[in-house]
Amino acid sequence: MNNLIPRLTKTALALATGLLLCPGVRGERSDSQLWLPSENCGCKVEYKGSLPEAKKACEILQASAPDEYFTRVRLEQKRDRKIPSESYKVKADSASRTITVTSPSGRGLLYGALSLYRPQSCRDREDKPVHNLRILNHWDNMDRTVERGYAGKSIWDWKSQIADSMKSVYEKYALANAIAGINGTVLNNVNASPDMLRSEVVREVAKVADILRPYGIKVYLSVNFASPMALGGLSTADPLSSEVSGWWKKKVEEIYREIPDFGGFLVKANSEGQPGPCDFGRSHAEGANMLARVLKPHNGIVMWRAFVYSPSDADRAKQAYVEFKPLDGQFDDNVLVQVKNGPVDFQPREPYSPLFAGMKATPLLAELQITQEYLGHSNHLAYLAPMWEEFFEEAPRSGIKGVAGVANVGDSDNFTGHPLAQANWYAFGRMAWNPELSPETILDEWIYQTQWLNPDADQQKTLVKMMAGSREHVVDYMMPMGLHHLFAFGHHYGPEPWCDVAGARADWLPKYYHRADKEGIGFDRTEKSGSGATCQYPESDRSRFEHFSTCPEKYLLWFHHVGWDSKLPSGETVWQALNRHYDSGVEGVAEMRGMWQDMKGSVEPEIYSDIDSRLLTQHKDAIWWRDACLEYFGNISGKEAERLPMHRLEDMMKVKLNIDNFTNPSAELLDTKR
Amino acid sequence: MNNLIPRLTKTALALATGLLLCPGVRGERSDSQLWLPSENCGCKVEYKGSLPEAKKACEILQASAPDEYFTRVRLEQKRDRKIPSESYKVKADSASRTITVTSPSGRGLLYGALSLYRPQSCRDREDKPVHNLRILNHWDNMDRTVERGYAGKSIWDWKSQIADSMKSVYEKYALANAIAGINGTVLNNVNASPDMLRSEVVREVAKVADILRPYGIKVYLSVNFASPMALGGLSTADPLSSEVSGWWKKKVEEIYREIPDFGGFLVKANSEGQPGPCDFGRSHAEGANMLARVLKPHNGIVMWRAFVYSPSDADRAKQAYVEFKPLDGQFDDNVLVQVKNGPVDFQPREPYSPLFAGMKATPLLAELQITQEYLGHSNHLAYLAPMWEEFFEEAPRSGIKGVAGVANVGDSDNFTGHPLAQANWYAFGRMAWNPELSPETILDEWIYQTQWLNPDADQQKTLVKMMAGSREHVVDYMMPMGLHHLFAFGHHYGPEPWCDVAGARADWLPKYYHRADKEGIGFDRTEKSGSGATCQYPESDRSRFEHFSTCPEKYLLWFHHVGWDSKLPSGETVWQALNRHYDSGVEGVAEMRGMWQDMKGSVEPEIYSDIDSRLLTQHKDAIWWRDACLEYFGNISGKEAERLPMHRLEDMMKVKLNIDNFTNPSAELLDTKR
Repeated sequence: MNNLIPRLTKTALALATGLLLCPGVRGERSDSQLWLPSENCGCKVEYKGSLPEAKKACEILQASAPDEYFTRVRLEQKRDRKIPSESYKVKADSASRTITVTSPSGRGLLYGALSLYRPQSCRDREDKPVHNLRILNHWDNMDRTVERGYAGKSIWDWKSQIADSMKSVYEKYALANAIAGINGTVLNNVNASPDMLRSEVVREVAKVADILRPYGIKVYLSVNFASPMALGGLSTADPLSSEVSGWWKKKVEEIYREIPDFGGFLVKANSEGQPGPCDFGRSHAEGANMLARVLKPHNGIVMWRAFVYSPSDADRAKQAYVEFKPLDGQFDDNVLVQVKNGPVDFQPREPYSPLFAGMKATPLLAELQITQEYLGHSNHLAYLAPMWEEFFEEAPRSGIKGVAGVANVGDSDNFTGHPLAQANWYAFGRMAWNPELSPETILDEWIYQTQWLNPDADQQKTLVKMMAGSREHVVDYMMPMGLHHLFAFGHHYGPEPWCDVAGARADWLPKYYHRADKEGIGFDRTEKSGSGATCQYPESDRSRFEHFSTCPEKYLLWFHHVGWDSKLPSGETVWQALNRHYDSGVEGVAEMRGMWQDMKGSVEPEIYSDIDSRLLTQHKDAIWWRDACLEYFGNISGKEAERLPMHRLEDMMKVKLNIDNFTNPSAELLDTKR
Repeated sequence: MNNLIPRLTKTALALATGLLLCPGVRGERSDSQLWLPSENCGCKVEYKGSLPEAKKACEILQASAPDEYFTRVRLEQKRDRKIPSESYKVKADSASRTITVTSPSGRGLLYGALSLYRPQSCRDREDKPVHNLRILNHWDNMDRTVERGYAGKSIWDWKSQIADSMKSVYEKYALANAIAGINGTVLNNVNASPDMLRSEVVREVAKVADILRPYGIKVYLSVNFASPMALGGLSTADPLSSEVSGWWKKKVEEIYREIPDFGGFLVKANSEGQPGPCDFGRSHAEGANMLARVLKPHNGIVMWRAFVYSPSDADRAKQAYVEFKPLDGQFDDNVLVQVKNGPVDFQPREPYSPLFAGMKATPLLAELQITQEYLGHSNHLAYLAPMWEEFFEEAPRSGIKGVAGVANVGDSDNFTGHPLAQANWYAFGRMAWNPELSPETILDEWIYQTQWLNPDADQQKTLVKMMAGSREHVVDYMMPMGLHHLFAFGHHYGPEPWCDVAGARADWLPKYYHRADKEGIGFDRTEKSGSGATCQYPESDRSRFEHFSTCPEKYLLWFHHVGWDSKLPSGETVWQALNRHYDSGVEGVAEMRGMWQDMKGSVEPEIYSDIDSRLLTQHKDAIWWRDACLEYFGNISGKEAERLPMHRLEDMMKVKLNIDNFTNPSAELLDTKR
């Protein structure tokens, strides 16, 4: 932990560092210029109030002028209850070379000021967020492991109480969030330890909250529903027990004494072994409402996750809907139900969760995953904005009041492991602010602001093209056409379509999802002959998904079990189309490697090589995935892959990566296994 | 060792097994039909003499008729001192459905009889060998390791005296040789142990000789020149010492008492640490002649190897010529100097050794290598006949009186490790018999006679195409354009163009051979500016090799150091041409894999998979070779490979295969390393 500060300070790859140099210095940085330079950059900044976020904005502007022409920036609070608090206006006066940012709030002034660092941003305009809750979810454990985290250990350390000494790191983290428009952070894993609510931990959380506050970031905590028993020594955690609610009331009061603007609780209940109200015969709504009522006086909220799947139903994809739809309308108004974008679990591609259509009377949070649990961890380049764009375009959005993103942040030099994965952190915040932003626009912004990237015009185009297409390649070489969950058991890195683990729940095994047999492949979720999951969708989507002829190819094997030789509208058979997708995924990665070569010189050599090396790993993995799936399915179908495999099926079936669910496998480990 | 017999008998993949079934049974074999079936096949065989080879031929013909139409085969000795002893005539009489084979000798009758099993062979014709000495060289040690052997342990075991119990295996081996026309075998390594001449070993050798004799195969031994000291207790091995020649005389008499038709000695002297006459101030000729005079009364010969390279000269390729050319004319008439085909050491491609032109008064043996020391061991398919064809076409042949081949035989189920490597054993014998035979013709013969291959007409064409092109692919992906000796130190399997071993002789290191630097690549062997090795060639070849513009591209970097950007007649630069060759090598292997898929069904599944699997290993190795060479040379030249590598240079440079010089690396070992 002692190493963390110098490492972060010295290497400085963070998003945050991208904009903290005076214009003209970009591309000529030396190590001493990596972080807020001590000297004033010459930009005149005016702000007369005392809002902490606005004062922070001044500090930043003072250190690094966002534009060469405009030499003065004025920040002004303009109280107006009719406009959203976080909105802001920018006015550029060429005559006086002055930019004026106005907003009803300090946060709005901060966002407005930071927006000036984006390309072509010093002009008249206004902006406001589509969602008021834009929250990062850390799946960080108290032992500093990060569940599904592939960028090192947690930057938080609740046991060692080092928040003060970590201040400069946390400020970088906070700034990176603020730049992206993220206004809240849940500091610990949804698989929560009751110890997070111990008084000494709460005091440490308060220190972090103090550091993050000027950046407009509220702090939240995940709570273990059985905390009253584990921590309070009660004999129950029944939400209808007054003893239990009393315990929570006291705990919440304690928290708010330390953190007056504390955001609230995130709860994973009765899911994958976590305790919850159902253990005491109560509903999710009863559990959530008990906490909501305790938080209400402090303006706190409850974010209640809908990620549940009982082993009882024959189709896991239906479970969340089956359990939560009947509760619609029963939640208090400061409860939001947090729903994963897809009905299963952060697959490279899923149709949207039908809960977004079904929960008509309940405010929802869309839970997206920034960390690449199922998209190659931090070895693979997978720019996720196109995936989120797809979600926001296809899902009904009226109920969505906020967006949560499972963070890809750790204590690695660049926060995110894969340097380009910083873009996913940024894109998450930007799309939570405004889902209409195009993935390419966001990339243009991110590249422009990123310290270690200095592409010329052609390189910029290449980089945007390369990153924008990357997630589709991942889908193609892993699980095209609606295939899902073909992952290795436990760590979810490599391919294991054959996976069989004695005693494991059926719906943890790939065969449950691909259902490949001699005749065909895919999960029949139609009403007519399958699980009927299609019926959970609104009529227009239901009928589209229900029929082979109208179901989009990208969801075909999600909703249908189809013959290997079934003809697609394209004229191809299913087997041919699978081959095409897998080959195209591999080819796509090869092309990305070529495009990255064009970036030489616009990236510092160390980072260039790091990314080059990760792309090679991705290329090899893509071949591995293609071979594993086509050889395995070929074996079942009696068909032959159109391209010669580079691996023997029997060898691939022997591969066991000895890694945890918080480990990014090294290239070396992969080379000796794959 | 106890396992050897049942394994060989049961699996029966040998060349030999190909022709031992009655017509019509081909393709329908069961395990019981794998070896000489006990019942008579119905072919009437007539032979009235007592020549052992002719009697063996009768046995074979009786067990398996070579043709469905001709039901009678007559063998007749026709003494005629004007025609070569091993020649034979075949006469087919349709009316009586009788084939008559005539020859002056038993061996000729055997060859004639075995020739009937070749395609379209039952017709009037005659044949005679171009070379009278067609000798297999085993590099087998007394501990049963085989130097540069990749097909298991030695089939010989001089210490355990098991020749009797191994008879059926040795007969298969002998038959495989006879089918190919091989008439001699050197049973032990040229790095010879003096213990091979111990009386108990000689007695064991005699037993083997007895088994091989009816198949027309003479037995030879490699001898250690210092045997009189090591074995006889003498204080010297000086060939001019009468004590020494006396010791040899006695030993030779002992050998001939046991083996009346013993062939003679093969000697590696004053080479790579072996003792020789130069240790006593005598010349190679004096050493060879001493042994020759001792053998002369018994009609034995001496085969004296010219594979020498002192560390003194700046160019190893010149050494053999420098040492042996002055001795031309000094050897006795029962000495043959055995010269490797190329001037360095069995590289995938070398120009011919200039000794074939230089030794005008000395009978020569051309030493070829059947085992693939430098061509991917028994993992890679490299049909070698095209390499040998190239040698016989380019080298002056008038001095060549025999051909020696370093064997690829071991105790693996199929004798040769790679099933298709059986073809190299067969092709060696056939080309030693007649170097004008085309590689494709030999393949047609070999496929037709090979038990475990049953291709239809299209498959036959595919297989011939695939095998005939294989060696050129190996050259392309390993060492195109005259590059040589870029191999890993010691075991000679993978690529190590960067190899540097402290204390190693310069001419054991790849850098000595490729001489790549910032400006260019290649070994300047021209007269004008280099080592002058070109001058060892006859004028027409000298001038052709000397000049960049006339030097064949395939030998360019053997004779010239050329700039990376030098333009070739094709218009390409050297770097571009290197890229083209390496890519083409990899592509060629990929194509072979595709062609092999077409063979499914014509090969029994187990062998099909074995070869399929080896081709995959070869494909991966080809990529490894390409990447290692192009990345390494690219690093030196500052150029980039045209195709993206699948390996990082730094990773490749770390690879160390933990294998011996008699180990074929397993696919598994390679996968964890490569």
